Amino acid sequence: MNPRPAWITADNVALLTDLYELTMLQAYWREGMDREATFSLYSRSLSSTRNFLLACGLSDALDCLETMRFTPRALDYLACRDEFSGEFLDWLKDFRFSGTVRAVPEGTPVFPDEPLLEVTGPLPEAQVVETVLMNQVHFQTVAASKAARVVLAADGRAVVDFGLRRIHGTDAGLKGARAFYIAGAAATSNVLAGEVYGVPITGTMAHAYIQAHDDEMAAFREFTELYPDTILLVDTYDTLEGVRKVISLAREKGEAFRVRGIRLDSGDLADLARKSRDLLDEAGLTDMQIFASGGLDEDKIAEMVRAGAPVDGFGVGTRMSVSRDTPALDMAYKLTAYGGRGRLKLSTGKPLLPGPKQVFRREEGGMATGDLVALEEEDHPGRPLLVPVMEGGERLPEGSRNLEEVRTYAREQIRSLPPRLLAMEKADPPYPVKISDTLKEYHEEVAEGVE
Amino acid sequence: MNPRPAWITADNVALLTDLYELTMLQAYWREGMDREATFSLYSRSLSSTRNFLLACGLSDALDCLETMRFTPRALDYLACRDEFSGEFLDWLKDFRFSGTVRAVPEGTPVFPDEPLLEVTGPLPEAQVVETVLMNQVHFQTVAASKAARVVLAADGRAVVDFGLRRIHGTDAGLKGARAFYIAGAAATSNVLAGEVYGVPITGTMAHAYIQAHDDEMAAFREFTELYPDTILLVDTYDTLEGVRKVISLAREKGEAFRVRGIRLDSGDLADLARKSRDLLDEAGLTDMQIFASGGLDEDKIAEMVRAGAPVDGFGVGTRMSVSRDTPALDMAYKLTAYGGRGRLKLSTGKPLLPGPKQVFRREEGGMATGDLVALEEEDHPGRPLLVPVMEGGERLPEGSRNLEEVRTYAREQIRSLPPRLLAMEKADPPYPVKISDTLKEYHEEVAEGVE
Repeated sequence: MNPRPAWITADNVALLTDLYELTMLQAYWREGMDREATFSLYSRSLSSTRNFLLACGLSDALDCLETMRFTPRALDYLACRDEFSGEFLDWLKDFRFSGTVRAVPEGTPVFPDEPLLEVTGPLPEAQVVETVLMNQVHFQTVAASKAARVVLAADGRAVVDFGLRRIHGTDAGLKGARAFYIAGAAATSNVLAGEVYGVPITGTMAHAYIQAHDDEMAAFREFTELYPDTILLVDTYDTLEGVRKVISLAREKGEAFRVRGIRLDSGDLADLARKSRDLLDEAGLTDMQIFASGGLDEDKIAEMVRAGAPVDGFGVGTRMSVSRDTPALDMAYKLTAYGGRGRLKLSTGKPLLPGPKQVFRREEGGMATGDLVALEEEDHPGRPLLVPVMEGGERLPEGSRNLEEVRTYAREQIRSLPPRLLAMEKADPPYPVKISDTLKEYHEEVAEGVE
Repeated sequence: MNPRPAWITADNVALLTDLYELTMLQAYWREGMDREATFSLYSRSLSSTRNFLLACGLSDALDCLETMRFTPRALDYLACRDEFSGEFLDWLKDFRFSGTVRAVPEGTPVFPDEPLLEVTGPLPEAQVVETVLMNQVHFQTVAASKAARVVLAADGRAVVDFGLRRIHGTDAGLKGARAFYIAGAAATSNVLAGEVYGVPITGTMAHAYIQAHDDEMAAFREFTELYPDTILLVDTYDTLEGVRKVISLAREKGEAFRVRGIRLDSGDLADLARKSRDLLDEAGLTDMQIFASGGLDEDKIAEMVRAGAPVDGFGVGTRMSVSRDTPALDMAYKLTAYGGRGRLKLSTGKPLLPGPKQVFRREEGGMATGDLVALEEEDHPGRPLLVPVMEGGERLPEGSRNLEEVRTYAREQIRSLPPRLLAMEKADPPYPVKISDTLKEYHEEVAEGVE
């Protein structure tokens, strides 16, 4: 017990699942229930502060489908439990996901009832991937949707992800940095996200560096010797005194002074930005930029932007990284078809639309005007959002988009939404999403057949 | 770029850090600033809904300190960037954490201003571990603190963690299950948490299993053939009809019927629990248990318990797993001493106490009566909470407590808090935490010396 450290890799990710997925798997296997099933992953609602969700996490979800194996160690663990027969565990040895996935590309704005992805394959395979698919797509969509708001609030100013220290764990740290970048963040402080994904990384200095020096001026001097075009953190003791020291340093260094900017991390950021700007401008340092950080979110940023605070960029940490106002979405992965028949459930307050589906987005002059959720086989005007990304367990080119492409696509897609959806306030009316008549009729038909 | 899948292991975790940790590291190295530093990891406040925090994450934090290395691949990536000199990267090759850690044991209730851990070592080493330490201790403390409330609300009834699908990423999934268990959850659905930590795992069936069968009764019959003592999910179509089917099954099976209980996952859970209880009791199934799940948190659970709803256990997912009301704490890792001198910062609204510290918890008749935060060298009545857990970079026995021990300790520690802290409402007055006179004087002294 407790082998440490506890890393998750292809060797054990198959066990990162709810036990019921495995007990159901054995039941399906025993009952010979291996006909084709379709599951739909979608959000049942927006939160009270979202006008759209930004789909994210597909790439990692497909990775999990491709690499999921029950290794000898995993099988040994399952063998220690009563529930699983030796014959079933033998079968599990060769388990591979061989199904099909249709999904909206990462970076697509989506709305309630619209599938982010649909998995079709033999029932046991399509069922057992539920937990890990949800774990990746839910979090990354939460993260990207939050960051999209922060980026919109910054209105063209740079947003840098500082969230690694308080985001929930290492995996969220890495994947979150990618999601924020897709949503429009300019860079991250997270070095591994640079190494793994090529996200631009950036960073300056912490208060500890200043504190460790005998005085603030010495710290500024030493740091700029090594990193001439750095950004200096000025609020360790007294913010405006800190700015004055940066100005002294500029005078001291003359032509050699190349510091890019200052960072404010506490206090009344808008007021301090104005006073700092005045001090810098009076000293002729009009090119020096001002970065703000410390407890920021989209509301605080929007307020600063509205007030005309002279801030050139924002470092956004905790509130974006944990999606403070909406850390979870009402996202579900539900069986909608099995053995050629639509399936639903009627649980109170948790509606489900049966059958494999498609979403048609109508666009006029480059602007999205409304969506129609229909059965997959229907044909309607508008762009079909769900495209094949995996077939026979193998990833298709559409499932392997380059990160920069995804980010560019996301920007275009967000900009094509009706302007009221891009505001911080709740859009009224919300984006129009209709259910096709055929799908409604099918729902009635399936509902009548269940018991 | 984008090698996939993106697993984090000992091979790359050193890069899971903020870039400024590495730029500061090079600056310290270049300036020869390698005297002894102490950093303190603490929370500046409770959230509006917490009466205490439950310290968690130390074990993984120490793992990271023990295993952190800059591998050739990490060094190659850093070498591609302008900031880092070849000489520095050579030095980084042999980087090891060789410092000392003092910490409160996992499962200790802590309060604002109280260090959860203190790291003492050469400045570069103690600095560079900041991000990953915070990433682990912050999230796990958030998770354990939330779960402690949920467990208190359940008032002796079982709480089972169902959160894996919507918790933020794979690492949080695994570590969260451990944190919830430490805080008193009875079990988790997360199979990997069973394999890695020995947390009891449990699970039943999903709606999909019912839906995939042609009728609900057939699904119940098949599942109980394979898992005779399972728990049946009854709300797929009509909850009370589902309960009646379970009763029919009991009659059908007679003596062989061993189903442990039913699960309600939607609707008015308290009302449905009462009606289900009545149906089961009338049928003579008085031993059958009722489990409730679906959107639960401590407030909903407390309400059901207060209303006397006949629920025997709760499956708690999303709201606990993302700590819906408090997904982040105002936790920081701050330099408090360097080269034998206390250090602080004076940034507005972010107070910091200088120097290595100790927390003394006064206990009378097994009940905690108040804490005193003092300098490490002070001597006061009460139990010192911070104990050595790592020396010279090596973990001490106190840093390797067995999970069951930690869980038992946490339960005892929570029960020793004043009863008002164990209620769902904000405790008034809050738990008393005082700062020693010596520490206050030292703060004054250090504050006068900074510039």
